[in-house]
Amino acid sequence: MLNFEYYNPAKIIFGRDTEKEVGREAAKYGKKVLLHYGGGTIKKIGVYDKVISALQAEGIEIVELGGVMPNPKLSLVQEGIKLCRDHQVDFILAVGGGSTIDSAKAIAVGVPYEGDVWDFYVNGVQAKEALPLGVVLTIPAAGSESSDSSVVTKEEGELKRYYGTPLMIPKFAVLNPETTCYLPDYQTACGACDIIAHLMERYFTQVTHVDFTDQMIEATLRTMFNYAPLALIDPHNYDVRAEIMWAGTIAHNNLLNTGRIGDWASHDIEHEISGIYDIAHGAGLAIVFPAWMKYVYKENKDKFVQFAQRVMNVDFSAHHKDMIIEEAIRRLEAFYKRLGMPTRLSDVGIGEERIKEMADKSVLGRGTVGNFKKLTASDVYEILKLAL
Amino acid sequence: MLNFEYYNPAKIIFGRDTEKEVGREAAKYGKKVLLHYGGGTIKKIGVYDKVISALQAEGIEIVELGGVMPNPKLSLVQEGIKLCRDHQVDFILAVGGGSTIDSAKAIAVGVPYEGDVWDFYVNGVQAKEALPLGVVLTIPAAGSESSDSSVVTKEEGELKRYYGTPLMIPKFAVLNPETTCYLPDYQTACGACDIIAHLMERYFTQVTHVDFTDQMIEATLRTMFNYAPLALIDPHNYDVRAEIMWAGTIAHNNLLNTGRIGDWASHDIEHEISGIYDIAHGAGLAIVFPAWMKYVYKENKDKFVQFAQRVMNVDFSAHHKDMIIEEAIRRLEAFYKRLGMPTRLSDVGIGEERIKEMADKSVLGRGTVGNFKKLTASDVYEILKLAL
Repeated sequence: MLNFEYYNPAKIIFGRDTEKEVGREAAKYGKKVLLHYGGGTIKKIGVYDKVISALQAEGIEIVELGGVMPNPKLSLVQEGIKLCRDHQVDFILAVGGGSTIDSAKAIAVGVPYEGDVWDFYVNGVQAKEALPLGVVLTIPAAGSESSDSSVVTKEEGELKRYYGTPLMIPKFAVLNPETTCYLPDYQTACGACDIIAHLMERYFTQVTHVDFTDQMIEATLRTMFNYAPLALIDPHNYDVRAEIMWAGTIAHNNLLNTGRIGDWASHDIEHEISGIYDIAHGAGLAIVFPAWMKYVYKENKDKFVQFAQRVMNVDFSAHHKDMIIEEAIRRLEAFYKRLGMPTRLSDVGIGEERIKEMADKSVLGRGTVGNFKKLTASDVYEILKLAL
Repeated sequence: MLNFEYYNPAKIIFGRDTEKEVGREAAKYGKKVLLHYGGGTIKKIGVYDKVISALQAEGIEIVELGGVMPNPKLSLVQEGIKLCRDHQVDFILAVGGGSTIDSAKAIAVGVPYEGDVWDFYVNGVQAKEALPLGVVLTIPAAGSESSDSSVVTKEEGELKRYYGTPLMIPKFAVLNPETTCYLPDYQTACGACDIIAHLMERYFTQVTHVDFTDQMIEATLRTMFNYAPLALIDPHNYDVRAEIMWAGTIAHNNLLNTGRIGDWASHDIEHEISGIYDIAHGAGLAIVFPAWMKYVYKENKDKFVQFAQRVMNVDFSAHHKDMIIEEAIRRLEAFYKRLGMPTRLSDVGIGEERIKEMADKSVLGRGTVGNFKKLTASDVYEILKLAL
């Protein structure tokens, strides 16, 4: 186990009808809020009205900025920063899923910064302050509701990049599983794949003596493997949605990364795919992860055997490590298919035309991606070929 | 799953040689610190010197109050409050185990309060402010290093009582597993039993649809059942101590209680035993828990079968619920014995003389204890008889 610091002061307000708490919480941080959201879904499912009422009941002024798209765009972030400055907004409330929250986080660090907010994402600049941020989550997936990080895409050059700072941790996050009962199946499935990927990125580490966190990740993975298919069978089952929603937050609040180094190559590779093709992040992960596993498992078979046995319930004789691992990967692919996910690039109409370009871009400015095995551009190219 | 709020802003600084971070962290909160500790152990193992150096390097003035005993006493808390007021202390640093931290928490809420600090523990008074508090943990057991609660004993009447408020959550906690390698076997074992009890208190709930947190508690319990015996076999193994120390914090930081109601009868009953007899809390729990299980399991056999199968690996045919559960309890007792713990009152020389008195006192002012089954004084009496 490595030395670590763990700090997550996000207050989670979880359960039925919890949107009504938003006013009380927001009032602790500001008098004028930027209400940031995506399309019309939050209006259709009634969350928008509940949030507006709760804010108005506390006398909080509201400035609105909708229109966040999946893979949130730098241009909208910049528009949000200008809006906050023009209206002297002192608090940001993101209502929606990971894209909306990530966009709001970028705005939060961008407002008090004199330069271009993109500096944080590509130039190694560290934020010194940020507007306080709250969240009403409606899509369990990205884990952004209590994480310290954000991913934004610059349209020019299709660059999707990551930035993290404790300043981005939301002050509070309201999680009402009822709101997730309205998600279309495809979005439920994509969200589950994202959560599972966050867990597997943390799980596959070369750091040893991390058995407690291994056990905790396995527990969370089993929860997701159990409940994600049920959410498709019985979408309005509150109890099923609640298990997934809470697991999704814990998967990405850094608790399960304590004392270990995650891998994150699959995320980095997927970002290149969805940066170009605008496919859903979760679907991209379902394509990349099995290919990544096939390519890297020989770097530490024992870890993959543990995953196969304790998570995927593969109980072949312990001698046949390769057989055990290959079966675990097949079961993972079968799980993705059961959720209606693609598991190959060809399933979403992507050919080999730009895989060389994606491989090269994935390592741009850093030489390699991943930690379980440090992957060069040619490794990534091989993984993308396996994913065709 | 019940609605819940989860908030834990304690910053955990974990790993080798982390005591050196104490000065930097403490300096964020104060210029004059009350250094609160127990006996001579922290001096013997070098922690005292490291902490003093770290504080002095930041120019922090130090006021010392040692002498905390197991089952921390109200009189010392009152002495600490007076000391803080006399010296205008603005920060409290607890160095030691749960008793020292609990004593420090009571001092922290007592200093700015005009009345008697005991009001918080017995009269339902709620604290409005508290001095900030930091921790250097040397005994993994009570989980007090990131919890919001404290237990203090009033010598007069041998009353051991609990108080909790988010104001008591430490600002930071330094956890260096190296310092725990010096613990005597008996104290290591008692600490492990306390951690396991915190997990089982949360696990045995009548709240349904809490499968994710069930899985997380099971993961933490398995970690403890695996590693606690190894800490006795190989006391200086850092990796073993690290698993136990981190599991001990997570067991009691309220994450594993989200959406569910814990039981806590065994803790309440044990407090009556150690309030009178001054036995170690962990040893008392090893005596009470099996007796509690035998008495209550029929209230929800399915929950106990799940515990038996998923934690204690009892794989008898599923028809024989009683047999499965009884075997799980026997395995738990065998585990306690392997750690050198008592499992009966008679093992520590306690007879039936005062069990009626303990049963009556356990429900004093509240009528019942526990939630899995609400236990009256006569239920508690029966449990104590089973524990003889």
